[in-house]
Order: sequence, then structure tokens, then C-alpha cells
Amino acid sequence: MVPHVRVVIALGGNAMTGPDGSVTPQDQDRAVGVAMERVADLVAAGVSVVLTHGNGPQVGNLLVKNELAAHVVPPVPLDWCGAQTQGTIGFLILDALDAALAARGVTTRVATVVTRTLVDGSDPGFDEPTKPIGRYLPEVEARPLMEHGQTWQDRGDRGWRRVVASPEPLEIVDAPAVVSLVAAGFVVVAAGGGGIPVVRGEDGVLRGVEAVIDKDLSAALLARAAGADVLVIATDVDHVVLGFGTPDARPLESVTPASLRTLQREEHFAGGSMGPKVEAAVRFVEAGGTRAVISSLENIELAVHGRAGTVIEES
Amino acid sequence: MVPHVRVVIALGGNAMTGPDGSVTPQDQDRAVGVAMERVADLVAAGVSVVLTHGNGPQVGNLLVKNELAAHVVPPVPLDWCGAQTQGTIGFLILDALDAALAARGVTTRVATVVTRTLVDGSDPGFDEPTKPIGRYLPEVEARPLMEHGQTWQDRGDRGWRRVVASPEPLEIVDAPAVVSLVAAGFVVVAAGGGGIPVVRGEDGVLRGVEAVIDKDLSAALLARAAGADVLVIATDVDHVVLGFGTPDARPLESVTPASLRTLQREEHFAGGSMGPKVEAAVRFVEAGGTRAVISSLENIELAVHGRAGTVIEES
Repeated sequence: MVPHVRVVIALGGNAMTGPDGSVTPQDQDRAVGVAMERVADLVAAGVSVVLTHGNGPQVGNLLVKNELAAHVVPPVPLDWCGAQTQGTIGFLILDALDAALAARGVTTRVATVVTRTLVDGSDPGFDEPTKPIGRYLPEVEARPLMEHGQTWQDRGDRGWRRVVASPEPLEIVDAPAVVSLVAAGFVVVAAGGGGIPVVRGEDGVLRGVEAVIDKDLSAALLARAAGADVLVIATDVDHVVLGFGTPDARPLESVTPASLRTLQREEHFAGGSMGPKVEAAVRFVEAGGTRAVISSLENIELAVHGRAGTVIEES
Repeated sequence: MVPHVRVVIALGGNAMTGPDGSVTPQDQDRAVGVAMERVADLVAAGVSVVLTHGNGPQVGNLLVKNELAAHVVPPVPLDWCGAQTQGTIGFLILDALDAALAARGVTTRVATVVTRTLVDGSDPGFDEPTKPIGRYLPEVEARPLMEHGQTWQDRGDRGWRRVVASPEPLEIVDAPAVVSLVAAGFVVVAAGGGGIPVVRGEDGVLRGVEAVIDKDLSAALLARAAGADVLVIATDVDHVVLGFGTPDARPLESVTPASLRTLQREEHFAGGSMGPKVEAAVRFVEAGGTRAVISSLENIELAVHGRAGTVIEES
């Protein structure tokens, strides 16, 4: 069976956390198990799949551990936390997808690749960090961390919160390993959490940097690098909604990249969590991808073929 | 340049920690940098390399974080800690080896694969765990953890310590991804910390299990699966020493697998840290490998060709 469609699927938080956002090991394991049933259906149907995933709540937990154990063991930087979650979530996906494929009599193998993503050290995000991470702390606890170079912001009643850069992903550094494994027939898990952020020094050497990369924007780059036909951004809603929260709210079913750019300019997606998903989808199609779909996890098999979700393609 | 020799190198703790065993991020980074200079020399000389590495001190730190943050975030099991270290150490190796290769004008790419290792759920280690991990605690703190199913032992003056199974590695589950990447010309980092331990349930499904796998025994399996000619176990001494600590101490330079088995039976390696290294080396050659070498990290290039270290091969 020769795969006739190659798809990158970006899994959102609901594919890896409990219904209430819980990230106990058991809840993560269960959520990944449910998500992999849907992915296995796709693979069984002959689709070539590359998976990527978020890691926000998982990194949040690692930061708390860093903080509470800092008097005994040295904290690790944010890029290392990203690497840690690529290990754990990648491992969960390996076991769960192997099992779901075996249950369908499919012998396709799965591989997880530790993946770096190049960002620009002069990205404006590093001068004015805006992405909040980790938990709220009282000012008295945030101050010493600021003296160690971290940026924290007063967020009012809930306290202070660390903010970091969320720079533009420029290149999936380890894409060649993904491409090689895809060509050999593997389902590949890559660029988890948007990839481990690295910058290139003046000496040409790559080094990790403390930042958070939007996983959907990285997914769009990964999809291009992997030669994917379709990018599916799997989330917890069925469609992008125009006029969300207003009486005129309506689901967006099919749209061209140009129309989506117009809707962006009209600020239909400002401020919400949908903005980066819309941006990632439109970038992928503008760069030559056949189709991007923003869809619920439940519907990804239909979404791949443009029969569910918000479908972005040239008319 | 067609690689004419394929080598698996198992890196010991000194390749990833400071001189005093320190595992601050800076010390890990520096130690990996030094080790990758030696590995890059090998790759530049046309040798096809697969790397594996230990993770003991790193997992120790993660267990402390688990423990000290347990009142805020849920602890993760030991198999997840192993997965976390595959991410971080794999990431450090990617950056450091890329840089060392670039400095030599070598364009070979490096990839890190999240790797599971199959163990037997009925391995005697699970009934009578013997491998100490993590830090010493007073009995009063160990007791509640025992009530949660952990095994702790009274270690005298220093306190109580958790012990876990160290089962036999049976199969490197993700070896096919390693083989595929090696065939495509990558240097591959795999089976870090011996691999993430998994057991196969009666339903045929693989699931993580709390255990520690000896990284050298896994390296021997990995070397066979990857079709390596040579296994190099890189450590902090130049040779295996017979009669270590006695007036008759002498370095072992060249030995056949049969002679090494005899020395094992005479308990020359009992109790020390050299036992599993000797066992891994002899297994690799008995199973058809051309040569196994136990050598200092500094000498790995000579070691590959049997010109340094303790060389185990048929005469």
C-alpha cells in the first residue's frame, strides 16, 4: 500500500492532557491513547503521517519543579525543559500509536526525533518578551529571579508571572532526519513544543536559548520541509468561528488564503488562541501546501480530505 | 567517502558531567563538548558512528525534583525520567557534535532518536530490586513512599535509599529507526540511559515500567541491531585492570571472549563498576561482533582500531 497523501498533524493540548487540563502522568497517558486511535485510523487508511504536539502545561510543571528544588539541584534552562517534554510525550506517543496500529493489523513503525528549531537571536521577542509561562508568584519571590536575568510582569491580583520571548521559527534544524524516516515509511513524531529553540552564534554554532516557539507555526515549517500535502491543526473545536461570542457567530468552513488574510486584517482572530493557528494554516498554503485544515481531533480523518473543519485552500 | 567501519560508542558518566560528577547544565554542556571533539575525529576519519550514553546523575536530579515538588505537581514515573534525559542529553549532543563536525569541515548530520528497550516483566529484578537510585532519606520520609509501592532499603548511617529493578535488556525496540538513519548516513544518538524500559503486556502492548537498564548491556544489543563491527565502551580509565587495588594489578590489553569468561568466573570483576562493561563487551563479540574495546574517552579513535584500551576479540 503506497501512501498517497502525506500529512503533518499538529496536536493541541487536549491530545495530551485530561479534560480539565490535568497533566498527571495517568491523564496524559489516557489523552494520548485517545488521540492515537484517530491517528492510527489515518495511517491504516494509507496516509503518511508526521506528528507534532504542544507542551505548554508539561513545561509549566517542569518549571515548578525547577523552582521548588533549586536549593538542592541546579535548575535547567527553558530549552532543556522543551527537550524533556519531547522525550516524555514522544515516548507516550510511541507506545500508544504502536498499540493502536497493532490493533488494526498495521505494521507501520513509529519514531520520535529530538528536534531543534532555529530562531533569530535578534528577534524582537528577546528584547520585549511577551509569552507568559509557569505559575504566578508573589512579587517577593519574583524579584530574586529577575536579578538572575529573568523577566517577570505584575499581573495584578494573581501575582507576578515570568514572560519569555516567543520568536518566529525560521527552520526545523532536524528536518532532514524526519524526511529520511518518512521516506523509509515511518510515522515520525517531531518538533514537539515547536522544537527546542536554538540560535546560531557568530561562530556559526547552534546553542539553545530560553524561549517558547509556537507549535503551530513550527508545524507549518515542518510540513513544508517534510513535503507534506496537508497540514491539519487538531484542536478542541470543530471550526474557526467568525464573530466568536457575538450573535453573528458562524463557523468558517472553506476559505482561500487570500480571504483568510483579509479576515486577519479585519482582526477577526486577534487576541484569541486561534490567531497562531490561522497564521500557520495560511502560511502553509501560501508556501505551496495543498491544504491546511483546522479541525477537532475527532474529525482529523475527514479533515485530511477537506471534509471537516475549517479548510484553507486555493479555490 | 564510504564509511568502512561502523561503531557503537557507549559514553560513560564522565562524558556528561563535571570532573567532580557535577551535573549543572553548564558542566554537562562542557563535558559533552569535550567528548564530541573525540567523536567528531572519528566521524571525520570516515567511521560510521552510533552513540549511546548513561544518565544516572541526571535521573538522580529529576527524582529529587519529583520529590520536592510533589505537593504541587504530580511526580512522573522513573521511565519518564529516562525519557526526559534522552531529550536533554540528546539535545546537548546534537549541538556539540554539529559544531565539532562543522569545525572539521564535515557535513555529516546527527539525529537523536527517543528509544525504548524491552525488558521482561517477570525479570527477577522486579521481585527483588537491587539498584539504588536517588538520594538518601531518613526512614520517616521513606516510609510514606513505600506505602505508595516503592521499595526502600535501610543503608545505615546515610539513611534509606530507593532500590529498583535493573532487568536484562532484551531488545532495542526502536532499533529500526536507528538502522534507517544510519543507512542514510546520520550519526545517531540512541538508547540513552540504556533505553526507556518497557514491558510487553499479555495484550501485546508495550508499556513503560519503573526500572533502570544498564546502558552498556543495552549498547551491546544496539550494536548488534545496528550491524556495528565494533563496540567501544568509553569510560574514565585506560584499561580493565586485573587484580585492581592489589600489588599484582595489571592492565588487561588484549583478550579473547573465552578468556574473559574465565576471568569473570574467577570473579576478577565482581562488585566493581567494571562488571557490566566486561559483560557487555564479551556478549557483543560472542554474538558475532568483530571487536569490543573498553577504553578511556580520550583514546576512542585508537580504540576503534584495537590500538588502545582493553581489546576483546577472537585471536
